[in-house]
Formats: sequence, structure tokens, C-alpha cells
Amino acid sequence: MQYAEAKYNRNSLLLALRRYSSVVSNMEQTVLVPSLLRDVPSEDEWDGDAAEESCGDLYGNYLTLKAIRNTVESGLVPLDDRKVKSNTALSKTLEPLLDTDPEALFRFHLKGLFSVMTDLTKKTQSLTEKYKDIIGVSH
Amino acid sequence: MQYAEAKYNRNSLLLALRRYSSVVSNMEQTVLVPSLLRDVPSEDEWDGDAAEESCGDLYGNYLTLKAIRNTVESGLVPLDDRKVKSNTALSKTLEPLLDTDPEALFRFHLKGLFSVMTDLTKKTQSLTEKYKDIIGVSH
Repeated sequence: MQYAEAKYNRNSLLLALRRYSSVVSNMEQTVLVPSLLRDVPSEDEWDGDAAEESCGDLYGNYLTLKAIRNTVESGLVPLDDRKVKSNTALSKTLEPLLDTDPEALFRFHLKGLFSVMTDLTKKTQSLTEKYKDIIGVSH
Repeated sequence: MQYAEAKYNRNSLLLALRRYSSVVSNMEQTVLVPSLLRDVPSEDEWDGDAAEESCGDLYGNYLTLKAIRNTVESGLVPLDDRKVKSNTALSKTLEPLLDTDPEALFRFHLKGLFSVMTDLTKKTQSLTEKYKDIIGVSH
């Protein structure tokens, strides 16, 4: 029973949002000189196809992770959706979704948000560790 | 300044989730005999393509809206994703999304969840009004 509860807690969206805020705070406390991250290439699949159009260094990632944390903490849905509109893959996905029943849509976005928060949490922890490598602090 | 704040508040995901819980509570308090909703066809696009495979009456909708509210209030991400897997349109959308950068994915799911909560809130209010029509209470 206790195991089941622990399993449920790990699947809480609110917990995932809080956990993300917490690792970004830790990143901020660790990364005292963010400019050291400039021009350090992002090693993972972070930028994907968008790598050419955006600055793909760790400093860019650092700023993005902080910006997302601010959105998470405010709980506000960004009014500016240019980023989504400019993304072809995402735009293509919007049309079939509109035909779907709302319960499936609800589950889809709830799971999607949970999954992306878990992903962003890992990326934040990874960036923090890379900064420690750069300044020569062993972990 | 005050207007800007009010505008922001309307775009809060947490507020949208709370508002949905609230209208479902109101629906429960109004719909004292849920079985009156049996075999009353759902008039809107609620079921979409899934209309044939699911019971498309208001009673089914009533149960679904309550189930979603329970998920919202628990904050838990449902482990059982059969509903999403069985939905062809949603499955097709998952693949291009995986190639996307996480910031765009985050915004996509945040906006998506906000939008579907707004939609479900309207459907709950509409169902409550239809029940009042059925029992002959004017609104």
C-alpha cells in the first residue's frame, strides 16, 4: 500500500512542477558565473532540429531553463505563442487534436506536461553538473 | 496595470484547474438524480469520432466530467494510458512532438491543458443547464 502511494506521488504533476523549481534554484545557486557557460556547446539533443536557428550553447539553455521556471512558478499560461506557431511539427499536430474528445485531450496534455517537466528537470541537473566540471569542482 | 494583472489571472493554469473543480461541484449539487441524464443524447461535438464506440448520452458525460475532476484534484498523472494509445489521432501526433525542443513542448502542453480545462468547464456548465431544463427549473 505504501509502495502504491509512493508510486502515485512520483506521478503527481504538481510535485513534478515543484521538483523542477527546486532543481533550477539549485542550479542558480551553483552557477555563480553564468557567462562561463557561453560558447560551451550543448551535448545532448536539447536543440534538435532548431539547433541552427538558436544559440545552442549552455548559456542559452541556462536562460531558457530559468525562463521556464518563472512560468512554472507564476502558473501563468504564456500569451505569446509565437514559439509554438513557428514550430512546424507542433503546428501540424494541433489540427488532428482538435477532433479528439476532451477527456483524451486532457490526459494527453497532463501526461505531456508531466513528461516534459521530468525531462527539463534532468536537463537542469545535467547543466549544473557540467558547470561543476567547467570550474573544476568534483561531484 | 490592474487590467494587465486581471488578464494574467485569467490565463493561470492553476486557476483554470480550480475553476473546473468548482463547476463540477456545482454540477453535482444540482444534478440530484443523475439517472435522468440517461439516454439524453449529447448535442455538442463532445464525442466526435468516438461517438459510436462510447455511450454518447449525458449520463456518460456526467461520469466523465466527475472522473476528470478527481484526477485534477488529486494532481496525479493517470498511469493507465490506454485511452490515449487507442486514439489514432493522438498517437500520430506523438511522434513529431518527440523531435521538438523541450521549451516548445512545455508551452504546447501548458497551453493545451489550459485550453482543454476551459473547454471542459464550459461543457460542465452546459450539462448543468441541460439538467435544469430536464427537471423544468428555469435559469
